[in-house]
Amino acid sequence: MGEIVTIQQAVMAEDEKYALRVRQMMRDSGTLMVNVIGSPGCGKTTLLEETASRAPFLFAVIEGDLETSRDAERLAAKNIEALQVNTKGCCHLEAHVVEKALAALSLDSVGVLFVENVGNLVCPAEFDLGEDFKVAVASTPEGADKPLKYPMLFVQAEAVLLTKVDLLPHVRFDKELFLRDVRSLNPKCPVIELDLISGAGVEEWVSFLSGRLEEKRAHGQG
Amino acid sequence: MGEIVTIQQAVMAEDEKYALRVRQMMRDSGTLMVNVIGSPGCGKTTLLEETASRAPFLFAVIEGDLETSRDAERLAAKNIEALQVNTKGCCHLEAHVVEKALAALSLDSVGVLFVENVGNLVCPAEFDLGEDFKVAVASTPEGADKPLKYPMLFVQAEAVLLTKVDLLPHVRFDKELFLRDVRSLNPKCPVIELDLISGAGVEEWVSFLSGRLEEKRAHGQG
Repeated sequence: MGEIVTIQQAVMAEDEKYALRVRQMMRDSGTLMVNVIGSPGCGKTTLLEETASRAPFLFAVIEGDLETSRDAERLAAKNIEALQVNTKGCCHLEAHVVEKALAALSLDSVGVLFVENVGNLVCPAEFDLGEDFKVAVASTPEGADKPLKYPMLFVQAEAVLLTKVDLLPHVRFDKELFLRDVRSLNPKCPVIELDLISGAGVEEWVSFLSGRLEEKRAHGQG
Repeated sequence: MGEIVTIQQAVMAEDEKYALRVRQMMRDSGTLMVNVIGSPGCGKTTLLEETASRAPFLFAVIEGDLETSRDAERLAAKNIEALQVNTKGCCHLEAHVVEKALAALSLDSVGVLFVENVGNLVCPAEFDLGEDFKVAVASTPEGADKPLKYPMLFVQAEAVLLTKVDLLPHVRFDKELFLRDVRSLNPKCPVIELDLISGAGVEEWVSFLSGRLEEKRAHGQG
């Protein structure tokens, strides 16, 4: 399988050129780009819906899914500018797809561009899309063993969002173990606990983003 | 990217040879091989733990995970013969890995061989491991939109297991929509509802498997 590995490396190297171009576009427009990665159904789209009602910055979304445009429709219904990209069988987004999508989005006065990756904890962690950083979303019903099972994601993430904490009384989830394992992989990473039904935790998440956006803009002008 | 597609097709064609060999081994030993596919944390390992206490047949498990051998340890603690395979960065199992694993497992008097695939709804659906059939596992907290988002899995599955139905009072899950979408993709597919904490639904699942095992053995002798 040596040939395959070489070809995969070539694909990833080729894609890295697109990622660099995307990163430059984000620098030029002063937009913070956040790559949101989590399992199917962990609450990624709901997170963005809830972010909309509290964020002091404008944002846009690139929605990656194999099929359907349901998530973009859900966001559009909340007046969020969202562009759906169907990956047609591919289990992750790649930078060349993002670059193409950006041609259809206006970033004028957009503070944060979210990329909601395909629901998958494996391959999305391996691809640089040109984002400022990745965020790992894990929900309590999935169980506490996810950090050690999917270390590549949790090592890279600059924030871990623990969603569905409202279900803690009803599910088997060892929060101490989860936090300990996240810290063992990524000692300084903030972990934000979210209940997206009541909105608990959303302020903390929005303030984290605002801080990162401010830093980026200060740095861009410095 | 034409070259890449050609290479991928070549990899899949090569792997199909291994799948045919695995299928022949299962025919020779009269073992029913079931490829269990679902999101991270949807309850695949718990399903197998609960199956063990009620199944009238012996079974063995091949556990696919990127990292850790936690799931195989969980099963071993319940006296289930389980072999962990670490895919080391690959988001699905392939037949050549299964064939290698089979060399380390004794199928003597084993009725059912479960393969617990990597937690992912995309790529595991694309690879034939030599199994008799695939089973799709979806949990209620993931939401009802999964069948249409991941149609390849739901079209192929010969049973859909809806897990964590005990959480229905606490989550937003439109069961009618879920069932309608499953039927639209796969009209005759049984949907088995499971609460793996109380054990509700496990008998129905075990009886489904027993029926399929009996059919296979009758057919093998016929």
